[in-house]
Amino acid sequence: MTSPTSEQLLAAHPRASTDPDDRARASVDRSGFIPQSFADGVVFAQDIDDVVLTMKLASEHGVKIVPRGAGTGLAAGSCAQAGEVVLDLSAMNQILSLDPVQGIAVVQPGVINAAVNHAAGEHGLFYAPDPASTAICSIGGNIATNAGGMWCAKYGVTRESVLSLLVVLPDGQLLRTGRRTIKGVAGYDMNALMIGSEGTLGIVVEATLRLRPKPKHTATLVSYFPDEAAAASAASAVIAAGLTPSVLELMDGKTLSAVDSALGTDHHSRGGALLLAQTDGYGAHLEMQALQDAIEPLAAHSELAQDPQHAEALVEARRQAIPSMEKLGTVSICDIGVPRNRLAEAIAGLQRIEAERGVSIFIIAHAADGNLHPIIVVPEGQSITTGSPKAALADMFYLAKELGGTLTGEHGIGLLKQDWLPEEVGETSLQLQRRLRAVFDPQGILNPGKAI
Amino acid sequence: MTSPTSEQLLAAHPRASTDPDDRARASVDRSGFIPQSFADGVVFAQDIDDVVLTMKLASEHGVKIVPRGAGTGLAAGSCAQAGEVVLDLSAMNQILSLDPVQGIAVVQPGVINAAVNHAAGEHGLFYAPDPASTAICSIGGNIATNAGGMWCAKYGVTRESVLSLLVVLPDGQLLRTGRRTIKGVAGYDMNALMIGSEGTLGIVVEATLRLRPKPKHTATLVSYFPDEAAAASAASAVIAAGLTPSVLELMDGKTLSAVDSALGTDHHSRGGALLLAQTDGYGAHLEMQALQDAIEPLAAHSELAQDPQHAEALVEARRQAIPSMEKLGTVSICDIGVPRNRLAEAIAGLQRIEAERGVSIFIIAHAADGNLHPIIVVPEGQSITTGSPKAALADMFYLAKELGGTLTGEHGIGLLKQDWLPEEVGETSLQLQRRLRAVFDPQGILNPGKAI
Ligand SMILES: Cc1cc2nc3c(=O)[nH]c(=O)nc-3n(C[C@H](O)[C@H](O)[C@H](O)COP(=O)(O)OP(=O)(O)OC[C@H]3O[C@@H](n4cnc5c(N)ncnc54)[C@H](O)[C@@H]3O)c2cc1C
Ligand SMILES: Cc1cc2nc3c(=O)[nH]c(=O)nc-3n(C[C@H](O)[C@H](O)[C@H](O)COP(=O)(O)OP(=O)(O)OC[C@H]3O[C@@H](n4cnc5c(N)ncnc54)[C@H](O)[C@@H]3O)c2cc1C
Repeated sequence: MTSPTSEQLLAAHPRASTDPDDRARASVDRSGFIPQSFADGVVFAQDIDDVVLTMKLASEHGVKIVPRGAGTGLAAGSCAQAGEVVLDLSAMNQILSLDPVQGIAVVQPGVINAAVNHAAGEHGLFYAPDPASTAICSIGGNIATNAGGMWCAKYGVTRESVLSLLVVLPDGQLLRTGRRTIKGVAGYDMNALMIGSEGTLGIVVEATLRLRPKPKHTATLVSYFPDEAAAASAASAVIAAGLTPSVLELMDGKTLSAVDSALGTDHHSRGGALLLAQTDGYGAHLEMQALQDAIEPLAAHSELAQDPQHAEALVEARRQAIPSMEKLGTVSICDIGVPRNRLAEAIAGLQRIEAERGVSIFIIAHAADGNLHPIIVVPEGQSITTGSPKAALADMFYLAKELGGTLTGEHGIGLLKQDWLPEEVGETSLQLQRRLRAVFDPQGILNPGKAI
Repeated sequence: MTSPTSEQLLAAHPRASTDPDDRARASVDRSGFIPQSFADGVVFAQDIDDVVLTMKLASEHGVKIVPRGAGTGLAAGSCAQAGEVVLDLSAMNQILSLDPVQGIAVVQPGVINAAVNHAAGEHGLFYAPDPASTAICSIGGNIATNAGGMWCAKYGVTRESVLSLLVVLPDGQLLRTGRRTIKGVAGYDMNALMIGSEGTLGIVVEATLRLRPKPKHTATLVSYFPDEAAAASAASAVIAAGLTPSVLELMDGKTLSAVDSALGTDHHSRGGALLLAQTDGYGAHLEMQALQDAIEPLAAHSELAQDPQHAEALVEARRQAIPSMEKLGTVSICDIGVPRNRLAEAIAGLQRIEAERGVSIFIIAHAADGNLHPIIVVPEGQSITTGSPKAALADMFYLAKELGGTLTGEHGIGLLKQDWLPEEVGETSLQLQRRLRAVFDPQGILNPGKAI
């Protein structure tokens, strides 16, 4: 079953496992992708030397390697199959240093996103890219997918918070990208090239992160609207008013029901759709007043958080949206982006797709960035990567394209969205990107078949 | 004199000029670099077709092409010599569209930075990357150098404000990078790879820019300090206090004298060094109070702008710093970056270099980013790229390196800083970058000898 080349690597590496449970776990992520076979084995790296050894053995024997962080990905980017060996980085989970004066943390790739924020918080700092999966995803995975989150509305995505990387190249060489300074233009932006490359150009073994001062004040508002169209118009009104909320999240009525039944809350009784908004900084409260003025005409009912606990409870509803849906069946989380003023059209289009394809679609959105997560839910055991769910995914992509948008705002292409990539980036770009990939990985051993 | 291959291109292109004045002008920028010969000719592109034709002819005949925007570069990146043809993009200077609702402008590469800001301003928007050269530099040049400016302290550099590019590749093919949405991770970050690549990977012929809402309020403070060390400590205190000024600029005593004699102002009589600070947004005035609290203990005297005209006058002093020095002789503008908490050490190091090398060094800095511009001034006619000025430049680089910093924060490598690049990025990275370059430009015809 196991390929002979994998066997050579697995026999030679002291951290390798061929335990069936390890192999099964390392073959899936949170995308709903169902593997047809399992990885040949897993290397559990403890340090950089383990990673270097893995890649040296892999390039010597021509073994295909799938890098893996916490396995929370939604594009099957870290899923592996027979003939492949998984390089699991989750045990490299230390914060190596944190310099509160410079606002810089140096971390290993397996460290959990929330752990960085916890450590930064002790110094009045925070790490801005906060996926809803903050408690379970790793920084290495965040970097490989250029992860976003709620605060990205104001503070940018992972790319804007990663200063420098230490990377093991496919041949086992070490590459440093970026720098410790905020600005720098010496040579090409190798750092940005690595970020979002989905484990196809190198293995991130250390990251230098930019921390920001925690905002002095934060104001949190939750508003309920008659329906999704009204909520989307309100989000557009916030942008049109020139406001810069630090959070602007939309949840549709179906999502509110799912959250209510999972958390015992009663959001859906108060409206057919919800907007969660935060403003922060010295002018948080003044900016919140302006935000309320912008959305008031459209809202049925609003609630301003009275204290941090109350605010945290409102934010938690959003964080629990996906886990709540996961209780209802198998989920497939789409990730389209549209120009911010076309949010309402996107939602209307998604509702049309739901009706036409006869699939159940829940909608949440990072509204300030025009990044929507339409989530298809099918009963447990039913396939989500074929048939009408797959057809609905395709429809969503064409919808995004029609509105001037993109196939993926923050989850990546992985295995699942390959079909539509050429149409989005075009043949010239794809050919160039493949040639760039070959510069890093001439043997094609790193995460083959993924991303581009 | 002109190379036979250049001659073929120049004869075949309807926009080509071999006028000696055109050639002389196209052979220099604002770096002080003195060319040993002039470019063979200049193509003045009027549209994308002109650019495509240039690159098709160039790749057919193997002609070396030097892209050129407004020629205000400080690294000799657009300087050309015999055997090369300059592709001048300054006539492609139209704003093609501006969508105030989306906050997006689509522009040609030759448009002047300030013109974009002027057009955006009419809709209550602004374009954040504002080099001090805003009135004279082009967006294409800004993109090719990943230009910074004063507002970058809060809003990031050019990379954070360019969503998408249309690029003519060395073989004449068109490549689109990025997208119109704020977020997107479909494929590698080709947009970031192009930004800062100093005209070595392709010719930018169109750019989709992100505009931001103009801040509701702005507060402007100018503070005078006994000396540079005190001003640097004050800047660090601002960062340590967790503030996010939109502008934080430092000028040393010598610069104040230069500005005073150029503008007829009297800054230097009020202190030995100056910090210009702005805060903006709904909390601008509250944040300014906190900023004053942070620097007050170190300042000799402060002045809060009472109205926009007053604020503009204070900002203008900073914008005129380099032009003021240019009146004193030939300038060479260095561009090192250091971790933000090491600004005072950097300044002390620069003063040591000034004494040891016997060259005159003026210092200005984007203090919030740790980006310093030590400016060497020599009497008109004296060489600035050899002898002790060159030695002082080298010293500055080693100083930056010693402090954990970089050779160039925003001006690029161009021709002038090649010597030190390998030490900064390392051989592994440099080899990879050269191979990436060859993917785009296998013939090596685009800006050869520049950047990496
Ligand atoms: C409930 C839930 C909510 C989510 N919310 C968000 C959200 O708000 N925003 C968002 O962006 N994502 C979200 N996600 C998706 C997911 O958490 C992110 O994509 C995350 O960045 C993946 O991190 P990971 O460590 O789990 O990576 P994995 O799933 O292990 O891997 C993801 C990709 O990264 C590569 N990789 C991992 N580590 C490395 C490394 N060290 N070096 C090189 N390549 C590596 C893998 O090969 C793979 O291609 C959510 C997921 C869930 C389950
Ligand atoms: C007084 C003064 C103040 C300055 N202040 C700042 C500052 O605050 N911050 C800052 O970052 N810089 C500053 N600069 C430097 C300079 O203005 C910037 O580097 C600017 O981005 C250069 O733009 P340009 O159009 O003049 O480019 P050029 O000098 O014409 O070219 C610069 C580089 O870009 C390439 N290039 C130009 N156009 C294109 C294109 N369309 N496609 C591909 N490549 C192209 C050229 O080949 C060259 O490598 C200053 C310069 C002066 C003289």
